[in-house]
Amino acid sequence: MTSLLDIIELLGTLAFAYGGIVEARRNNLDLVGAFTAAFLSAFGGGTLRDVLLDRRPLYWVAHPSYPLLVFVLTVVVQVAFRGRLPGLGGTWWLITDALGLGLFSAAGVSIAVEQGLPLFPASLFGVITATFGGVLRDVICAQVPGIFKRGQLYATCAFAGAWVFILLQAVLPGAAPVFACITVAAGLRLAAVRFDLTLPA
Amino acid sequence: MTSLLDIIELLGTLAFAYGGIVEARRNNLDLVGAFTAAFLSAFGGGTLRDVLLDRRPLYWVAHPSYPLLVFVLTVVVQVAFRGRLPGLGGTWWLITDALGLGLFSAAGVSIAVEQGLPLFPASLFGVITATFGGVLRDVICAQVPGIFKRGQLYATCAFAGAWVFILLQAVLPGAAPVFACITVAAGLRLAAVRFDLTLPA
Amino acid sequence: MTSLLDIIELLGTLAFAYGGIVEARRNNLDLVGAFTAAFLSAFGGGTLRDVLLDRRPLYWVAHPSYPLLVFVLTVVVQVAFRGRLPGLGGTWWLITDALGLGLFSAAGVSIAVEQGLPLFPASLFGVITATFGGVLRDVICAQVPGIFKRGQLYATCAFAGAWVFILLQAVLPGAAPVFACITVAAGLRLAAVRFDLTLPA
Repeated sequence: MTSLLDIIELLGTLAFAYGGIVEARRNNLDLVGAFTAAFLSAFGGGTLRDVLLDRRPLYWVAHPSYPLLVFVLTVVVQVAFRGRLPGLGGTWWLITDALGLGLFSAAGVSIAVEQGLPLFPASLFGVITATFGGVLRDVICAQVPGIFKRGQLYATCAFAGAWVFILLQAVLPGAAPVFACITVAAGLRLAAVRFDLTLPA
Repeated sequence: MTSLLDIIELLGTLAFAYGGIVEARRNNLDLVGAFTAAFLSAFGGGTLRDVLLDRRPLYWVAHPSYPLLVFVLTVVVQVAFRGRLPGLGGTWWLITDALGLGLFSAAGVSIAVEQGLPLFPASLFGVITATFGGVLRDVICAQVPGIFKRGQLYATCAFAGAWVFILLQAVLPGAAPVFACITVAAGLRLAAVRFDLTLPA
Repeated sequence: MTSLLDIIELLGTLAFAYGGIVEARRNNLDLVGAFTAAFLSAFGGGTLRDVLLDRRPLYWVAHPSYPLLVFVLTVVVQVAFRGRLPGLGGTWWLITDALGLGLFSAAGVSIAVEQGLPLFPASLFGVITATFGGVLRDVICAQVPGIFKRGQLYATCAFAGAWVFILLQAVLPGAAPVFACITVAAGLRLAAVRFDLTLPA
């Protein structure tokens, strides 16, 4: 079970980082900007969570091979593919990004619940962890963050997953609430893309 | 006295949050964006102060009914009022916003003074607490923050209130310096709106 | 040796702050905006480093004369020079800014190494300390940060200096690695301006 979560973590991190590189390309950033965008997309949400909850070491400090991997990925993509990058609409990217959304939401809410936070703030930490990396990336691109504009559900999926985790962790032991959170968040995200689900307002 | 401060805190928080919702509407954000804008407006300044001064738990974690109230307010406004929102020029909003500006400035500078900070940095914490929620909100709207553009005094009022607090807390006990800070900051702010007071540069 | 570093620190801080004031002018900010831009340029990178590494007190809290100096500088420039400010292309500004870039990179990476961080994250802390003040300043000006756009090497110089520090501190005692970092970072920066060196991508 743990190794399955490790695989999802690796895939999710790479999917988030690649999303950052694509955004950087779209905004004509150079290698420094592309790495920053990839880094923020992959680690920004968790870093914000850890700063707000006063946890150290930060994830990318404790696992230095991850930021190094993102660095290598950025250099390779930036140097090898000069033209338009394969977009973010591909099935593989959508699935790994959705899994990352669910896993990072679970990682955020579970840490908050462990620290004894009240449930509503705890659920917000699921959303922050899963989505604020992308928010920070959009901010350095001087764009209104995509998740704040009317569109297919994204942050809402992390929010729903976080509440599934909160409800289940009270009654189920072990990793089951984490997998339920991932399933609900990723499933809702893929359904939102497939059926064009949006918020009413 | 304490309960009067509690009432000002509630009114100020709601005024700040409503200001965030109006800004979000102006920038065409959806419900996720509107809640984030409202949340940042209401709690962003205090959160930045607490992170910079290494204080935990954060205000909205220790008082979860406040962010929940902001969440409900956002959903109600976003769903019930689809058109243009009543603006921010109304007397009631101006007064509660000005009171919030004063109270949050007092909350920032008093905590900094308590921690033994030198006076100039301490006064900056009054300004940060009172105004950086709005700065963060404007940043996620990809706008130059309103308080950095020539206009009626705003941050300056928090700065003046903070110095009144600093000077008085050395000689007056209890809540008197807090009320003096609120009076000066809110009074100066309302005078700035009434008489169009601006900085010389 | 220490007093030489103190002089570089003062010059670098003033050069960074002045760069912030010029950017604020270019974006039509008022005195509040200009001070915030100057403050972020001068202290933002170190503050971000200290928050991420959980160090207190922050530099500008422990050395309150520095932010006060930046405040006075901002007021003087803002009030005395109403027109277009002397730009950032002058030799003196370029040299002091380059020295600041090198010193702040050394300050970031040395603290990270001292805390026992793995080398790649440690090198990133050199870059963050030296360059993220400018990033934060550009963000509040609602601009894509200059260091993320194709142009003469800047963050790369801090990165190179940080690695020189990392390699040398393992074998050389005292302040030598710091001076080597400053020399390499500042030298590369000035060479980049002189010979128009840019990243390949």
